[in-house]
Amino acid sequence: MGKAAGWLGMRCLTLSTGPKAGAWRRWMSVTPNVRKVEPKRDARYGALTDAHAGALEQLVGGSANVITDEEHLKAYNSCWMNKFHGQSKLVLRPRSTEQVSAVVAYCNEHRLALVPQGGNTGLVGGSVPLFDEIILSLGKMDKIESFDDISGVAVTQAGVVLETLDTFVGERGYRVPLDLGAKGSCQIGGNVATHAGGSRFVKYGSLRNSVLGMEVVTGDGTVIDSLKVLKKDNTGYDLKSLFIGSEGTLGIITQLSIACVKRPHASQVALFACESFDSVKKVLPLARTRLGETLSAIEFMDGAAVQLALKHLHHVEDPMPGEQHPFYVLVEAESAENFVVEQLMDRFVTEAFEAGLAVNGVMSQNDDQKHKMWALRESLPEAVQKSGNATFKYDVSLPMDAFYALVEDTRSRVRGQEGVHCVGWGHIGDGNLHLNLSAPSKGLSELLEPWVYEWVSKHRGSISAEHGLGQMKNHGILYSRTAPELALMRQLKQVFDPNAILNPYKMLPLV
Amino acid sequence: MGKAAGWLGMRCLTLSTGPKAGAWRRWMSVTPNVRKVEPKRDARYGALTDAHAGALEQLVGGSANVITDEEHLKAYNSCWMNKFHGQSKLVLRPRSTEQVSAVVAYCNEHRLALVPQGGNTGLVGGSVPLFDEIILSLGKMDKIESFDDISGVAVTQAGVVLETLDTFVGERGYRVPLDLGAKGSCQIGGNVATHAGGSRFVKYGSLRNSVLGMEVVTGDGTVIDSLKVLKKDNTGYDLKSLFIGSEGTLGIITQLSIACVKRPHASQVALFACESFDSVKKVLPLARTRLGETLSAIEFMDGAAVQLALKHLHHVEDPMPGEQHPFYVLVEAESAENFVVEQLMDRFVTEAFEAGLAVNGVMSQNDDQKHKMWALRESLPEAVQKSGNATFKYDVSLPMDAFYALVEDTRSRVRGQEGVHCVGWGHIGDGNLHLNLSAPSKGLSELLEPWVYEWVSKHRGSISAEHGLGQMKNHGILYSRTAPELALMRQLKQVFDPNAILNPYKMLPLV
Repeated sequence: MGKAAGWLGMRCLTLSTGPKAGAWRRWMSVTPNVRKVEPKRDARYGALTDAHAGALEQLVGGSANVITDEEHLKAYNSCWMNKFHGQSKLVLRPRSTEQVSAVVAYCNEHRLALVPQGGNTGLVGGSVPLFDEIILSLGKMDKIESFDDISGVAVTQAGVVLETLDTFVGERGYRVPLDLGAKGSCQIGGNVATHAGGSRFVKYGSLRNSVLGMEVVTGDGTVIDSLKVLKKDNTGYDLKSLFIGSEGTLGIITQLSIACVKRPHASQVALFACESFDSVKKVLPLARTRLGETLSAIEFMDGAAVQLALKHLHHVEDPMPGEQHPFYVLVEAESAENFVVEQLMDRFVTEAFEAGLAVNGVMSQNDDQKHKMWALRESLPEAVQKSGNATFKYDVSLPMDAFYALVEDTRSRVRGQEGVHCVGWGHIGDGNLHLNLSAPSKGLSELLEPWVYEWVSKHRGSISAEHGLGQMKNHGILYSRTAPELALMRQLKQVFDPNAILNPYKMLPLV
Repeated sequence: MGKAAGWLGMRCLTLSTGPKAGAWRRWMSVTPNVRKVEPKRDARYGALTDAHAGALEQLVGGSANVITDEEHLKAYNSCWMNKFHGQSKLVLRPRSTEQVSAVVAYCNEHRLALVPQGGNTGLVGGSVPLFDEIILSLGKMDKIESFDDISGVAVTQAGVVLETLDTFVGERGYRVPLDLGAKGSCQIGGNVATHAGGSRFVKYGSLRNSVLGMEVVTGDGTVIDSLKVLKKDNTGYDLKSLFIGSEGTLGIITQLSIACVKRPHASQVALFACESFDSVKKVLPLARTRLGETLSAIEFMDGAAVQLALKHLHHVEDPMPGEQHPFYVLVEAESAENFVVEQLMDRFVTEAFEAGLAVNGVMSQNDDQKHKMWALRESLPEAVQKSGNATFKYDVSLPMDAFYALVEDTRSRVRGQEGVHCVGWGHIGDGNLHLNLSAPSKGLSELLEPWVYEWVSKHRGSISAEHGLGQMKNHGILYSRTAPELALMRQLKQVFDPNAILNPYKMLPLV
């Protein structure tokens, strides 16, 4: 018995079941009434006149902070995937909270619709206008206000790029508890407004835990100053959590404080090949038991995704050359000390092999090797992009018993379609799957939607684990939330943004 | 350099400063307009007639689930400190969400005020009626609905006692990420409704991170089913975080799902004596650097508090007999493996002594010794209670540079008062101080209030770190929140509970 008992015990546990049906009796008891409609410009919004443009230019401090020329506007009117496009004629780049407040108050008075935009790295068109909405870019509010070396709390303007902030606190021995592929362009305000997840969620949890305070401008221009640096504060309702993940529809985040974590000095990365998804599932509780709190990432990739990356991207190296396996798991452990991650990872890897969960694997000996393993994982979106003319991306949460079945069922559904690739990867420690398809043309979407959403809803998942709803999925909110929840959300929108000028046509469904 | 550099580097960091004044320009720029008024029964609420009592009894399944006799009512009408008292004539003990919903709908229709009550272990009178409000006790909704051994997610009714839930998941290798002194009586629904903190907050963070979903009955009896078991879900506004910490004023939590963590197999506890608070402050970053993610608790006690416990409580043992020190710090590390906590703790303790931060200390050799060190820390509230006829408890968050100055300044303020004890302890890793005083009579309160609240507000702290506002501190919300925040909170109350029947006279100020 002793230590061995834990793992022997754990193996049995994989046979256990999820929540009983009883707990779900209300949720999903009926097929949700979901209707996708073509968005039309809402006539309640005023048109941007020259007088408005002039007044707004004054409010942001003159022409240097305004963009109006066609060529320059393009990047603000489109998402990086070139999938969503708007026709905004005006980008405002305020430099202070006061300017943001003045702009919002003006737009509220004149019923001008506004789209707040951070790094514009989102995947659901949340930061791109649909029509002629004015774009309010936070990029010039890029000042790190303060950092406390004892508590690790940073106070920063919303437009600071995630990587810039992480480098800044990194030089002081800390780390931003959030890491994602877009870190070089995305902005911390946008990360918070969209409740970004990423690969370290498994260790540091939600931004609702790390963000201690914020300053927000609500729909009438009111500045809500909740910019505290306290880790605990039980005085009244948690307003800041409402703004986290609200995609700029309740208010525009102008500043925030975030609790950073000590930067670990030591890390170790292992990459396993597994013969079945059942083995992948068993790696997860083993990693939790053996690596404990040092487990900092556990990422799943299917063999088809890895093969796409190796085929289309020259900078990606095959971790196990000459072999093809159906599943791979990348496991990272981090700690204050080298001996901790080395010994814990050794035991974990040994047990994974002894238990037959892994059939082959590599373990990092140096930073270069760690980087290569992560590069493989992070290259997957680009690989899919390169493998076809049209791509279809789904970011879902699923209970573990349904996790990979979605990829398999989707493959069955698209079988016989010429040139289609269907692959899966994701943050398996959080139950977050990225289902990706590529095809020669966009026509495939009819086969996939709403079929994928209905599948996820039926299996009690979320149709958006971390990407949000934006303009792409807002019609589908009832696949994951109930009608009384949606009714409350509409009332909240009314409280925070009575004239609905903030990021219209997004998040909440149009009908 | 190398590893040593981390610590040498850290020492310099203690000289750094907090946020710059600029970031705070709005908050606390004026003395808040705080007025404490004597609560009066609100005439808008109906009186409980025999007809109402009969109808409500039917709604909860008959007389077995109702309490009306004077003697039995007493425990529900008073808090455990015997400080807050109500005159409710009726306690309802529903057994299902349907019953709760029916009761709330009935009360809403007839404008009958309701007080939801869990284990009634709160410290601010939040679960005790002020007048004749009907008490809705959740204690009979005590079923653990399900547990998933792979994800560690428990789905439970609100009335399950925290310790019962922790024992249940403990038998399956997991732990509830919340631990507090009242665990044997408090209920998980009440913990969530009050956003309980406790001594493991430093490791596991806020319940807003751990609670994945909930089922809530809002003020008109609507059942909001957000009872998901997913770790990530970015589909719409985060309604559940609003209910967390709302003290039953927005809705009654009937069920919830919570992500439990792997129970660590190994732990180590050390107790240091420090000669100055400056040394205490330096222990904190050293612990974070050296123990990393294994740091599971860091608790601070001043010498005066420890002396009170040793004097008044026979079961408490002196960790360093024959010595008296001004400050003590209890540090706990936990991990999957013994060698990790043993080696990390050894290095940490050695460095703390070598750096002169600790002048004496003990380290646990077995569970009994760990228990004794924790018993000392957990005995402090009782020790204060026994040391005088009247006690005054403040639960505040403060930036580290003001942390212990509050205790010192309070001592100066009460100097010369006969028989007064003024002591401090708290969760120093979270900036959470418990300032406690005892005195021969209640008269001291005039010296202390609003002086303490004003002191905390001036130093940019929170007047309630984890205890909440309830009926004791609701008048003081503006010491820690801004007027625009309060205005939004009142609008939210209107959305969720239009007739204000849920837990009236609590959390939001009366004027």
